[in-house]
Amino acid sequence: MSALRFPKIPPSEPQGSDLLAWERGRASFDVHELSTFLYGEAYLERQKRILSLIEHDPAFDKSQRYFLGRTERFAAALRKDHALIKLAQKHRWGPDDLSQADSLITEAGPFGLHRAMFLPTLQAQASKEQIEKFLKPALRYEIIGCYAQTELGHGSNVQGIETTATYIPETDEFELHTPYLTACKWWIGGLGKAANHAVVMARLISAGKDHGPHPFVVPIRSMEDHTLLPGVMAGDIGPKLGYNTTDNGCMWFDHYRIPRISLLSKYSSIKPGTGEYIKPPNSKLSYGSMVLIRASLVGGARQGLAKAVTIAARYSAIRRQFVDKDVPKVIEDSSSHKKTVVETPVLDYSTQQYRILPLIATSYAFFFTSKEMMRLYNVNVHNMTSGDFSLLADVHASSSGLKSLTTTMAAAGIEECRRCCGGHGFSSFSGLPLLLQDYVPNVTWEGDNYILSQQTGRYLFKSFRELVAKRASGERNTALQINNPTLAYMNAYLENPSLKCPVTSAVQFHNPEIQLTAFGHRAAHLVAQVVHALDVEKRTWNSMLVDIYNVSTAHCQFVLVQNFILGIRGEMPQPNGVVDPTASLSSSAKQVLTRLSDLFALHMIHKEPGQFLASGYLEAKHLKWLGEAIMELMEKKIRPDAVALVDAFAFPDYMLHSAIGAYDGKIYERYTEMATHEPLNKTEVVAGYEQYIKPFTNPKGLKGHLVQSRL
Amino acid sequence: MSALRFPKIPPSEPQGSDLLAWERGRASFDVHELSTFLYGEAYLERQKRILSLIEHDPAFDKSQRYFLGRTERFAAALRKDHALIKLAQKHRWGPDDLSQADSLITEAGPFGLHRAMFLPTLQAQASKEQIEKFLKPALRYEIIGCYAQTELGHGSNVQGIETTATYIPETDEFELHTPYLTACKWWIGGLGKAANHAVVMARLISAGKDHGPHPFVVPIRSMEDHTLLPGVMAGDIGPKLGYNTTDNGCMWFDHYRIPRISLLSKYSSIKPGTGEYIKPPNSKLSYGSMVLIRASLVGGARQGLAKAVTIAARYSAIRRQFVDKDVPKVIEDSSSHKKTVVETPVLDYSTQQYRILPLIATSYAFFFTSKEMMRLYNVNVHNMTSGDFSLLADVHASSSGLKSLTTTMAAAGIEECRRCCGGHGFSSFSGLPLLLQDYVPNVTWEGDNYILSQQTGRYLFKSFRELVAKRASGERNTALQINNPTLAYMNAYLENPSLKCPVTSAVQFHNPEIQLTAFGHRAAHLVAQVVHALDVEKRTWNSMLVDIYNVSTAHCQFVLVQNFILGIRGEMPQPNGVVDPTASLSSSAKQVLTRLSDLFALHMIHKEPGQFLASGYLEAKHLKWLGEAIMELMEKKIRPDAVALVDAFAFPDYMLHSAIGAYDGKIYERYTEMATHEPLNKTEVVAGYEQYIKPFTNPKGLKGHLVQSRL
Repeated sequence: MSALRFPKIPPSEPQGSDLLAWERGRASFDVHELSTFLYGEAYLERQKRILSLIEHDPAFDKSQRYFLGRTERFAAALRKDHALIKLAQKHRWGPDDLSQADSLITEAGPFGLHRAMFLPTLQAQASKEQIEKFLKPALRYEIIGCYAQTELGHGSNVQGIETTATYIPETDEFELHTPYLTACKWWIGGLGKAANHAVVMARLISAGKDHGPHPFVVPIRSMEDHTLLPGVMAGDIGPKLGYNTTDNGCMWFDHYRIPRISLLSKYSSIKPGTGEYIKPPNSKLSYGSMVLIRASLVGGARQGLAKAVTIAARYSAIRRQFVDKDVPKVIEDSSSHKKTVVETPVLDYSTQQYRILPLIATSYAFFFTSKEMMRLYNVNVHNMTSGDFSLLADVHASSSGLKSLTTTMAAAGIEECRRCCGGHGFSSFSGLPLLLQDYVPNVTWEGDNYILSQQTGRYLFKSFRELVAKRASGERNTALQINNPTLAYMNAYLENPSLKCPVTSAVQFHNPEIQLTAFGHRAAHLVAQVVHALDVEKRTWNSMLVDIYNVSTAHCQFVLVQNFILGIRGEMPQPNGVVDPTASLSSSAKQVLTRLSDLFALHMIHKEPGQFLASGYLEAKHLKWLGEAIMELMEKKIRPDAVALVDAFAFPDYMLHSAIGAYDGKIYERYTEMATHEPLNKTEVVAGYEQYIKPFTNPKGLKGHLVQSRL
Repeated sequence: MSALRFPKIPPSEPQGSDLLAWERGRASFDVHELSTFLYGEAYLERQKRILSLIEHDPAFDKSQRYFLGRTERFAAALRKDHALIKLAQKHRWGPDDLSQADSLITEAGPFGLHRAMFLPTLQAQASKEQIEKFLKPALRYEIIGCYAQTELGHGSNVQGIETTATYIPETDEFELHTPYLTACKWWIGGLGKAANHAVVMARLISAGKDHGPHPFVVPIRSMEDHTLLPGVMAGDIGPKLGYNTTDNGCMWFDHYRIPRISLLSKYSSIKPGTGEYIKPPNSKLSYGSMVLIRASLVGGARQGLAKAVTIAARYSAIRRQFVDKDVPKVIEDSSSHKKTVVETPVLDYSTQQYRILPLIATSYAFFFTSKEMMRLYNVNVHNMTSGDFSLLADVHASSSGLKSLTTTMAAAGIEECRRCCGGHGFSSFSGLPLLLQDYVPNVTWEGDNYILSQQTGRYLFKSFRELVAKRASGERNTALQINNPTLAYMNAYLENPSLKCPVTSAVQFHNPEIQLTAFGHRAAHLVAQVVHALDVEKRTWNSMLVDIYNVSTAHCQFVLVQNFILGIRGEMPQPNGVVDPTASLSSSAKQVLTRLSDLFALHMIHKEPGQFLASGYLEAKHLKWLGEAIMELMEKKIRPDAVALVDAFAFPDYMLHSAIGAYDGKIYERYTEMATHEPLNKTEVVAGYEQYIKPFTNPKGLKGHLVQSRL
């Protein structure tokens, strides 16, 4: 029972629900058609089915989420993870069902890394014996695992980790040890409280030789009563900006002995007794799973950004502020036909459009690229199993750069959406603070976004040098086959480094070939500059890191633009046996996607035109046409579809858990209702009044008129 | 007692404390001299004195801050605010002492808005009678107030608020009423639980006429027992991204009667009986206090950013990652003289330098401008009291744009610092998450940063049009007096719109005149373009908002660069009777400030060169020299001083409360120590194990070897 009650009066006219209904009524395309294009029928059906199972189950209730402190949130998450496994077992869910449920519940729990990292590592690297001993019980959740790689002093540089696993031939064991404070395992999700086993990355030392980091499956807590095993110390690393429902943990070992079978030995192993080290056949194999994780992070960027922009677009269509004097907003009373000027919805202001509409376009852009990355990942895995590693370098390089770029863009976009909601975006009830807090680690984990860009840069420089060499060796006009878009844009640049953009009006910027040439020419220009600095001026790698980051960004922007354009055209390759869904798209859906693709590409140039100008392709005169093209596109073409475009993301209210972003537009009603549940509102007079307020305001405890007359 | 213990072993070599000592040993300037230049002796002495009083007082203890849930944090903040007032009364603190304590404690409490908004509003607008009745008890904290302007549906547009205060001549009262749900007061700091009075902004309606928003002093909670008064409903609005120690509240009125004296009537009032409205003499008077608040937000931007960059710079000097192959870092053992290659401190990588060093420079830039804004505010107030409003428009316009730009830069900079600390920047113990969360509302409150830019734009366009008219009327070569830097850059542009930058080498970019011309030419170019679009092409104001935002940003960047350059030269005006502290600066201190000024200006161009290129002043060829100038400046000149430069900000460890940013560099020792206090670590086996984990891992409660053999 809350001491806070709100008056039973409506918000002032027009009502949010009416405004959203009006927005939806004027959409130029069919929302369900676009949702189906994005996700497929099966996904939407599954989402509906899983939602109906969890939405009203108390174990998955979100109503207290924004109010709980960390200890309570962790307890709720543990309960939730337990209930989720029981539900999955009961309904015999496959991995897609479980991941669908996770994505609806939007709360990383203590068992999350068991599924995301522990199981996949075992599946990839366990021997037959280890599959029986570790993987099978882990699939039954008898073993609950975590993945312990990062150390207090070592993150991105895995080769620098300090924990040692020394082979002891006498007992056929490894001795795990933490030699320095910096070698404590740190950040390990699920380790703090939940896991009873860990995959521990440790330096394998045998016969006095250090073979570098290797994975060991290590029991850490008693299977009997969950106490820590002797020689292991572990705990939770404390509160964080987000992810507070996960028990990120720390761990150290004091000469802790584990049997030889602990070394995951599908690829490398130790010979008993002698301690001889058997090398893995191909060290590139482990890159495959990194690609998968990064590809899935691009999908995560799409989802995180799309959620935020759904909230911001709906809110901005309802929230009104000032009157636009040039074009005042007028509403007409349906009975009296009286017309009234009301404040202008903030989504009608061009700044708000410039902030929000490109983020809708970006979410769609990420969709096409994340789909393509998953396809490439699968093709590459298929190739590698038959010994063909030709695609690996390309896929690894693009997955590094795209992870870096898309997570950076999504994190910035989510924060921009939050700010677009003004003060209310600062309230937890908007759903945006927690979304942001749980999203931002994406820019750091699985490779820091600045460091990752070096992978992409290295690959591009190598490709460029090879291309230049081929051209120099006379292949230019004869045998040079350009079968790859990266080489194609580099070759086009080398053909004509001083190419000029032929555009002479705003409308010509809608030409996708112009857009692709702009991005390709600019990326190639940056690559050529860095290669020149490294190879000719002999600049150090370190001194070029800022430029390398820019190269990676420019290349990946090209990739995003290209996949969007080709995707709409139905020119992207599809997985074997899959029919390109673009083929059956209606012309209205294709039209709105084309507009988004235009806005995505043109807005990126308009916002940061510097490198496009510096590359020589664009000139100052183009910026005016570019600005006009964007403004016209936003105001006339995309603004009317804005609400429908976020509706097409098909996020249920339960998933967003946002007072101001719900489908029905009753923002102020939901918002005030949520405030009544604030724990501080349980009592009318705050705890602490007697001790901390009354001594100032009524120290003598005077009654009624006495205290009033004192003032 | 924690169940988590760490091994008594040191981090691996080299130690953080040794690294920071080494950094400090090579500084090119005297840290204390620079601190004194920034703050003055009196400030530093006061900081020391106040710190010694609060640092070890349990009421101001920070050790539990990162662990508490919102309810507990609010309770602690209420206790803290109570103790602070008692301490202030005991030691007869002046406002500077109290604000110093606030800034050390870094926690907005429930009484914060009483001092920041309630008292100043009364001081500015209360009549003599109201001073006796409201202000004097408020100064004694008998009345605890808040400032209730924002409504659920109305923020930036104050003119649109819906709460009414209708004058009732029969009883000589006002009737406060909340006509719509959107009219509920919302976001009001201190209202949720603490305040017993509020300044309420409500539409003054008298004799059927709506006179727009006016301030009323309204009792809301009983002075006897703190219960809500009949006709008033209020409570807390719930959890937020930050500021959770403040009880931001909501309130609505049900035909609530207050006496006529409630209308703050120094300037406007109602005649008893007739209800005749007496207009204020000059509506501009209230702009003065807005300027003060915005000027103080620029100071806040400086402090917030400087704190974050202190943490990031110290951490980056200690944190090591990978080995820079071109320039490996070698340490020598002092006894054996054995040399070892260690990983490279991340601050030696050029990307980290590019991210962090310009933020140090920005903090110094903000210092000069915030000082100048306070001086201008005081001059303007002095002028206004003698009826001279000539400075107001200029001061109001620049304070709007500078609030917008500096808080946007600081918020982005704090987040950048947080990301620069990698994973550990995500841990609350770094101090950065809470700093960020409490800082970000600055971009929204006191005028949303996008909306504010329109004020600056409007003023610049007016100035430009007047200048063009003057020049056209023949004043160009005769009477035209340019006594203001804004007009000066506009005039220079009009003299030669196609001016080209004469730079032909990296070193020439260090010329401050070149820097100022680049920023001035670019700002004037943008102003001219927008004025042309509005006046000649007749574009609507709304369609130009993105360009207007860019105009405001460009102008304010010019102001920041100019104040930095003139400030170092000792050419900034000083308040009456104050000697410019620059005069006595040593040459080494001046040198390091000049380097920072160079980096500040050049980095802004380098990061977003588009408009500088589009303005025609810079050409593509310049970007290479610009990049070289910055890289050389960073690596050779500023990097060696980085730690000393943040030391000069003189933030005590107590203030930063950061495991990784403390003065002594013992980052891993502090970090692990803090983790032992995590409440989840109180027990070895987590609460919930029996219910949520054991059913999977040991459902039959088997003992020891039985459960092991099951696997």
